[in-house]
Amino acid sequence: MYRTHNCGELRMEHVGQEVTLSGWVQGSRDIGFMMYTDLRDRYGLTQLLFNEEITDKDLFEKARTLGREYVIRVTGKVIERISKNPNLPTGNIEVEVSELEILNASKVPPFTITDETDGGDDLRMKYRYLDLRRKTVQQNLFFRSRLAVETRNYLSQEGFVEVETPVLIKSTPEGARDFVVPSRMNKGQFYALPQSPQTFKQILMVAGFDKYFQIVKCFRDEDLRADRQPEFTQIDCEMSFVTQEDILNTFEGLTKYLFKTVKDIDLPEFPRMFYDDALRLYGSDKPDTRFGMQFVELNDLAKGKGFPVFDNAELVVGICAEGAAGNYSNKDIKKLTEWMQRPQIDAKGLVYVKFNEDGSVKSSVGKFYSEEDLRAWGEKFDAKPGDMLLILCGETEKTRKQLNELRLEMGSRLGLRDPQTFKPLWVVDFPLLEWDEETERFHAMHHPFTSPKKHDVERMLNGDHETMKALRADAYDLVINGVEIGGGSIRIHDRELQSKNFKLLGFTPEEAEAQFGFLLGAFEYGAPPHGGIAFGFDRLCTVMSGQSSIRDFIAFPKNNQGRDMMIDAPSDIHDEQLEELSLLVNIKEE
Amino acid sequence: MYRTHNCGELRMEHVGQEVTLSGWVQGSRDIGFMMYTDLRDRYGLTQLLFNEEITDKDLFEKARTLGREYVIRVTGKVIERISKNPNLPTGNIEVEVSELEILNASKVPPFTITDETDGGDDLRMKYRYLDLRRKTVQQNLFFRSRLAVETRNYLSQEGFVEVETPVLIKSTPEGARDFVVPSRMNKGQFYALPQSPQTFKQILMVAGFDKYFQIVKCFRDEDLRADRQPEFTQIDCEMSFVTQEDILNTFEGLTKYLFKTVKDIDLPEFPRMFYDDALRLYGSDKPDTRFGMQFVELNDLAKGKGFPVFDNAELVVGICAEGAAGNYSNKDIKKLTEWMQRPQIDAKGLVYVKFNEDGSVKSSVGKFYSEEDLRAWGEKFDAKPGDMLLILCGETEKTRKQLNELRLEMGSRLGLRDPQTFKPLWVVDFPLLEWDEETERFHAMHHPFTSPKKHDVERMLNGDHETMKALRADAYDLVINGVEIGGGSIRIHDRELQSKNFKLLGFTPEEAEAQFGFLLGAFEYGAPPHGGIAFGFDRLCTVMSGQSSIRDFIAFPKNNQGRDMMIDAPSDIHDEQLEELSLLVNIKEE
Repeated sequence: MYRTHNCGELRMEHVGQEVTLSGWVQGSRDIGFMMYTDLRDRYGLTQLLFNEEITDKDLFEKARTLGREYVIRVTGKVIERISKNPNLPTGNIEVEVSELEILNASKVPPFTITDETDGGDDLRMKYRYLDLRRKTVQQNLFFRSRLAVETRNYLSQEGFVEVETPVLIKSTPEGARDFVVPSRMNKGQFYALPQSPQTFKQILMVAGFDKYFQIVKCFRDEDLRADRQPEFTQIDCEMSFVTQEDILNTFEGLTKYLFKTVKDIDLPEFPRMFYDDALRLYGSDKPDTRFGMQFVELNDLAKGKGFPVFDNAELVVGICAEGAAGNYSNKDIKKLTEWMQRPQIDAKGLVYVKFNEDGSVKSSVGKFYSEEDLRAWGEKFDAKPGDMLLILCGETEKTRKQLNELRLEMGSRLGLRDPQTFKPLWVVDFPLLEWDEETERFHAMHHPFTSPKKHDVERMLNGDHETMKALRADAYDLVINGVEIGGGSIRIHDRELQSKNFKLLGFTPEEAEAQFGFLLGAFEYGAPPHGGIAFGFDRLCTVMSGQSSIRDFIAFPKNNQGRDMMIDAPSDIHDEQLEELSLLVNIKEE
Repeated sequence: MYRTHNCGELRMEHVGQEVTLSGWVQGSRDIGFMMYTDLRDRYGLTQLLFNEEITDKDLFEKARTLGREYVIRVTGKVIERISKNPNLPTGNIEVEVSELEILNASKVPPFTITDETDGGDDLRMKYRYLDLRRKTVQQNLFFRSRLAVETRNYLSQEGFVEVETPVLIKSTPEGARDFVVPSRMNKGQFYALPQSPQTFKQILMVAGFDKYFQIVKCFRDEDLRADRQPEFTQIDCEMSFVTQEDILNTFEGLTKYLFKTVKDIDLPEFPRMFYDDALRLYGSDKPDTRFGMQFVELNDLAKGKGFPVFDNAELVVGICAEGAAGNYSNKDIKKLTEWMQRPQIDAKGLVYVKFNEDGSVKSSVGKFYSEEDLRAWGEKFDAKPGDMLLILCGETEKTRKQLNELRLEMGSRLGLRDPQTFKPLWVVDFPLLEWDEETERFHAMHHPFTSPKKHDVERMLNGDHETMKALRADAYDLVINGVEIGGGSIRIHDRELQSKNFKLLGFTPEEAEAQFGFLLGAFEYGAPPHGGIAFGFDRLCTVMSGQSSIRDFIAFPKNNQGRDMMIDAPSDIHDEQLEELSLLVNIKEE
């Protein structure tokens, strides 16, 4: 037997008992005739005492050979500590060791196994098994596990059935790039890994499953960014005979339940915001509503006063940074302007208006506008003495995006984005289609299966090109603290409407049939009205923990090149494997 | 709103209420001035009443257009039925319809949506969304969902943490064939889909996770048989600081819990059988212990009496079919012999000894053995009047396999294999290595990470070739009703022992390092003793339901050619996709 107790459970009530513990050596303090060793496992830390005067010499000498991360088994008596440690749940006791077995030795780890480690990213990923020993990383993954358990509890209680959909499916050119899997038995053909179980869950609704969910791996072969992984996990759901309202209520319920059970936070009712308002007021379809600083448009006040830059702009729009006037010297403003002019944001310039504490007004466009003009702006922003307006201008869409970046930056600088404050928000009424000027075609804003709003169905079936741009969808996103946690829509369940949508998206009837014939077919055999949603599970874990990197919530993440540094994958495969798959590798020189 | 109630919940207490229901038209009976329509959803069936004398003419005419599988919404009043249906939970009431909306029409389905359908396999797979509407198929998948919920409940309560391991991993030549995934960002390199999360769960133990589980998809590119699928699901577990005994107890606990909660069956303690005994007594490492009919070896009694076939055989072994003597004419025996001589079994012949009810003895080898001889055989089998011995001979391993087939066949014929009787069994002490005469190399009986028994470690490190064949492992299988439900082992956690095992399995040190260097490395940084098990989840569902085809418990199974008939995958992909992946398809003419 390796243990009678784990390293986190011994208390005063165990004093006098003989116990056996197993775990890792966290460290030792040798004070000559006695040695204290901290023994660690997933459950906690227990202090071991090797006392030369009590135990035999050999055991004491053996104890002295123990290095960090050695795995040992000890037997001994639980005794009360003389100097207790109130910060440790086991801090009242220690174990006086009478038997010691070294189960496995350990080389000196390449970085320290502590909450704050000295290991760099690459080293930590290569030795992920050591990184995963750190309490902070373990806690993240235990949190994730707990969140999955509670998600399943809630959805099961609500009558959802978890159904596993296949991983080896069919490649579809729509959307992001697929990972593909060559088929040996069907030579020259390929499976694809699912980007989402979208069509399968719709098929389950056609099959009468009524309420489906799945916590499921999905795959996208995209160029990676910090918050993207080639494989990621979704809480995927679908319901029949529902309206948008039913879905929002159900998943607002799930979100509240998770915050309550896992973090003991009671969230009030989630506000809802129209997509158009989100863009107008925050320049983003995922606004961070932990703080206000809403956009105020100045076209009416700022144009026609002889400042050509504003006069020629489609939109003049700004934000009010509360209490910032006194903290931004000309040099600071210049730096901020340069930050906005970086290629990532690409703003032309930045106009400021300071309403100083002493009542004076100062602005970079002071020569074009009277103090009265500027005070009128201030009124529109509801600015108080000490506040500073930051104003951009240009083409509407672009300017809003730029101002969104500035708003988030100012929010951070002003300490308005506390990671342990949670502000969920439903963004609703997304456009159905997005017109791409470059390729001169429509893209699905959500995906090709999204239904237009009921009152837009007729317009969609019979309207002209311009009408299509104005169609709104029963599509919605859940946003928390500026992060898109999930999105979904009511789906089309009518063959004619679905065919029309495919046509608008540029599919020929033959392509639509080849890719989605099974779904169009299914719609002819009694498909119910249905809709659903998917939450990004990795992101949900990250945001709920008040953190920002999804990698810290994935046991074995891949790096920006899509590599698993620990197992060193992907890798070459044997020629025989390629031959069996009827494939040749053909790398072109660049 | 689509519904106030579902189709399974209305009772007498709802009489008088106005309700709205949505669902599928199961069928209608038109009796002229009234029409009864059964409305179906996942939850049940409710009878709708269209009464020409009460509702308006138009509604009644509209109701007459309803075909099978139409999706409708109705509003009406719950009334007490005149002729009640005690077989239906909603059988006391019906809904007198006042409003009817056809939500979606349906073509006539290609097969009937009933428990026993007239659809063939191919048709059912192509129209899986209709097949999945059948109550029997839905029940299977609801059962599966329930089993997953209860599995997670049990393991979570036991302190197991669910951790998601990656799906895009590294190809390893050991074991079955991998599915591979070409990497676009790492040209010419491939990921592999996991055959199991084996090395990752061991890494999690090295990382101190202590108790891990996952219900997880695994993949094998094998030629398919009826009970094999290219993607399948495992309940995958691993524990640290445990012995074989700890693991058997934990997972016997899980199995009992599942039978109790899901089927209300109390299973007694699971018997344990040594691998060697299983082969000796049943000719199989997964014996069906719902019935006895154990093998009895006759070498001592049957040899040396002048019957050359037995004299020259390595093994003479038989079973006793209780009460079968009277039911097998010479013709029946001949047929049974021919059944045994089919190439699948390939027995040379079949010897019988009948102990007739009248006390006489009859045998196909009567001329070689005296009645006294045969009665001595009977005694060894504990045969009673009316029983029949069936005896095979030949090379030991082959003969046992053949007799296993005969035993199972006779068990079925004698009605001893009731699918609702459940007999679990632990088979333990598997050999560590299997010598393959053909390739002249060892294979891992379980997998390359399995530990020899403690007392075999020294022999393994220092023994000769013959010693290796005799090594026993801490490896175990859970068998229920002759089906292997799961298997596992205590793992090696020592670098030297693991390296030795790789060497025995024919890896060069370089190959071992290239494939499993991360694991060997992990063993140097304090790997704890650990072990685990994996249950085949598809099989567990199937066996617990008393059924035999795992496809009936998978929502979207693939056929024997690995094809998904519904979505028609795998399929061709675009040339641009191949080019991005630096691949050429190169199908050789055969």
